[in-house]
Amino acid sequence: DFRSVIDELQPYDMAFIFKEMPEKHRARYLSYLTVDDITDMIGELEREFQLVVLNKVGKTKATLAMNKMDNDDLAQLLEEMDEELKEQLLSSMEASESKAVQLLMNYPADSAGRMMTNRYVWIPQHYTVKDAVVKLKSFAEIAESINYLYVINESKQLVGVLSYRDLILGEPEEKVQDLMFTRVISADALQDQEEVARLIERYDFLAIPVVEENNVLVGIVTVDDIIDVVIREADEDYEKFAASGKDITFDTKAYVAAYRRLPWLILLLFIGLISGSIISYFEDALKQVVALAFFMPMVSGMTGNTGTQSLAVVIRGLSKEEMNKKTIVRLIFREFRTSIFIGAVCSVLIAIVSIIWQGNALLGFVVASSLFLTLIIGTMSGTIIPIILHKLKVDPAIASGPLITTLNDILSLLIYFGIATAFIHSL
Amino acid sequence: DFRSVIDELQPYDMAFIFKEMPEKHRARYLSYLTVDDITDMIGELEREFQLVVLNKVGKTKATLAMNKMDNDDLAQLLEEMDEELKEQLLSSMEASESKAVQLLMNYPADSAGRMMTNRYVWIPQHYTVKDAVVKLKSFAEIAESINYLYVINESKQLVGVLSYRDLILGEPEEKVQDLMFTRVISADALQDQEEVARLIERYDFLAIPVVEENNVLVGIVTVDDIIDVVIREADEDYEKFAASGKDITFDTKAYVAAYRRLPWLILLLFIGLISGSIISYFEDALKQVVALAFFMPMVSGMTGNTGTQSLAVVIRGLSKEEMNKKTIVRLIFREFRTSIFIGAVCSVLIAIVSIIWQGNALLGFVVASSLFLTLIIGTMSGTIIPIILHKLKVDPAIASGPLITTLNDILSLLIYFGIATAFIHSL
Ligand SMILES: [Mg+2]
Ligand SMILES: [Mg+2]
Ligand SMILES: [Mg+2]
Ligand SMILES: [Mg+2]
Ligand SMILES: [Mg+2]
Ligand SMILES: [Mg+2]
Ligand SMILES: [Mg+2]
Ligand SMILES: [Mg+2]
Ligand SMILES: [Mg+2]
Ligand SMILES: [Mg+2]
Ligand SMILES: [Mg+2]
Ligand SMILES: [Mg+2]
Ligand SMILES: [Mg+2]
Repeated sequence: DFRSVIDELQPYDMAFIFKEMPEKHRARYLSYLTVDDITDMIGELEREFQLVVLNKVGKTKATLAMNKMDNDDLAQLLEEMDEELKEQLLSSMEASESKAVQLLMNYPADSAGRMMTNRYVWIPQHYTVKDAVVKLKSFAEIAESINYLYVINESKQLVGVLSYRDLILGEPEEKVQDLMFTRVISADALQDQEEVARLIERYDFLAIPVVEENNVLVGIVTVDDIIDVVIREADEDYEKFAASGKDITFDTKAYVAAYRRLPWLILLLFIGLISGSIISYFEDALKQVVALAFFMPMVSGMTGNTGTQSLAVVIRGLSKEEMNKKTIVRLIFREFRTSIFIGAVCSVLIAIVSIIWQGNALLGFVVASSLFLTLIIGTMSGTIIPIILHKLKVDPAIASGPLITTLNDILSLLIYFGIATAFIHSL
Repeated sequence: DFRSVIDELQPYDMAFIFKEMPEKHRARYLSYLTVDDITDMIGELEREFQLVVLNKVGKTKATLAMNKMDNDDLAQLLEEMDEELKEQLLSSMEASESKAVQLLMNYPADSAGRMMTNRYVWIPQHYTVKDAVVKLKSFAEIAESINYLYVINESKQLVGVLSYRDLILGEPEEKVQDLMFTRVISADALQDQEEVARLIERYDFLAIPVVEENNVLVGIVTVDDIIDVVIREADEDYEKFAASGKDITFDTKAYVAAYRRLPWLILLLFIGLISGSIISYFEDALKQVVALAFFMPMVSGMTGNTGTQSLAVVIRGLSKEEMNKKTIVRLIFREFRTSIFIGAVCSVLIAIVSIIWQGNALLGFVVASSLFLTLIIGTMSGTIIPIILHKLKVDPAIASGPLITTLNDILSLLIYFGIATAFIHSL
């Protein structure tokens, strides 16, 4: 029957079915699910659907499910509810569970503390392997991760970690203290989620313990949530890089998407007009040699392109590599040398093309030498601007591709018309 | 002493120390490391350093380490060696290990088969919980992941999976068959790594079994490698989006970086010249109304910006969402409506600005109506081009920001000068 089908479903699949199903069948579908199923399914649903489920199952089942939910997922769910509903739900929950989730929500957004779970296994240091196995068994059902047992002292300070593997291989009477690994790598509750992700990625952990300043163990962060962080952070970098507006997915409404994109576009519109006023300043030169206009889009476009290329390398690098003075100086010089190579190749090419096209060697020289200079400047601005922002503790990804492109437009026009004006009487 | 310090190090740290240490101390440092340490450390080093280590430790130790290495890591290491060295190393290894790694290398790049490991625990379906525990214990030391036991039938076909948690909670005499979960989610050995990553991300698995067509179990893929895939794929999208060239890190040499960036830049240079030839076609109009040139950079820049914004949304979306006709049509219409909002706001703004600046209402009308049209076209090209590429099974990220920007330059100039020419006698 239907119930036995459900037994074989993963939470993601239950959630998928729920979302795809016509509205009118949802209540019946939910009636087939146990509280455990509902708990698991809610963890896989987007916020708006989570609320639909909680409403549809009725207050009793909803409260039971919330008591059983992983507290990191629950914190995420409660986070964006309005105060009243949140208070109401919290007060209907078991006191200990409601306290645990409120603790989580006190940590800043994007911190380790905010994404940790309290469903892990800790043991006192005087335990034997046998004691530990007994405790583990009693926790196995509710623990989110049973791969590591965290060993604490009387003050709840983290003193060691024991993998499940160590337990299997240990003798029953062996002391946990003697088996455990003491140089524990842990995350600080206030640490940024991206740094926590880097630790897990580096050390290939399945979970990492979270401590407060005094080394008191307060929770663990599990690898499944870290994968979500890595994806979300990459999305975020992408959004900023493209100045495409935050959180625009395929489901976002058109006016919302427009609203999120417009601030950037309006800013860029006005910066774009600066390019226009530069051209208007050089109006006379342009009137004398209209051919100058022909190469304008190419010169400014190319400057933008090299800037974007450097920017991408720097931003992805900043999110992964350790930055120090030495690395930064080396990077800047590397990009400088790269831009000389690139500038040389492109300007030789354009000199040939412009002589063939316009039959004017001096114009060829003006275009080629401008391009050479602007490519170097484009590369340098794409490199140095994000580094400066990073040093100023501003997210360097805010130096988006469009912004760098628009700024480089201005620089390239200044150089191009500057050089052209110098030679205007011979052109 | 030094040895006891090493005992407390994670493989990543051993590798970090090795890389940072002056060349002359490396041999001595390696002499302190056991074969197990070296095996672990190699797994964390970049390819060039892996070769340095294998050279320095001498042939015997190198062969021992290679026998012990996870075969996915070993395959990665061998992958880019020249044939001769590869053959030599493979023939010095244990026959079974060398066979296992060669099997892996037969699968295509970026497939599940290429990144799987053979260090997992499988059990026949007739086993009891007690039998399974015994087998697990004997494998615990070498298995990469002991979170799941994979249950197979006589033909090595995957018939079920049992989590470690199930074993703990089961009775010793219970049959594995009765406890196991039979609706196993597995990856096909030929499946793309990105799809495998999506499965692990969805279902929060710590490892996923890999099967061949006939459902024969051939390996598992572990979550630590999936995190690397997610990061690498995001880097790749970023590189393509910015047309920044493949694999340029902070350590890439300048001429290599230039060489990787140049193909894109040269292509864009020639496309940029098309914009130039459009302007040259409208030379007369430009001579009559030089003010037209003032708004050119802004119009073409804005068209590029909206294109980039849509492109970013589509590319990130394509890498995550299920695409079907309905989703695509909905997305295109959403972007269309968004572009009308954006076009309306921006063109009203620019009409006001240009009337104030140039004191010419008709010019204001020409600029504003061009901008309105080009913003719609920019958005549409940023949306539709990557979707078409996706449908043609070309990686949509190849429709990079710079490419869309440069194409939009051309379109916007055509529209701008087209409209301007129509009104040229009144301007
Ligand atoms: Mg989940
Ligand atoms: Mg969970
Ligand atoms: Mg979560
Ligand atoms: Mg962040
Ligand atoms: Mg890793
Ligand atoms: Mg969680
Ligand atoms: Mg970030
Ligand atoms: Mg690793
Ligand atoms: Mg590994
Ligand atoms: Mg791929
Ligand atoms: Mg997940
Ligand atoms: Mg591996
Ligand atoms: Mg990809």
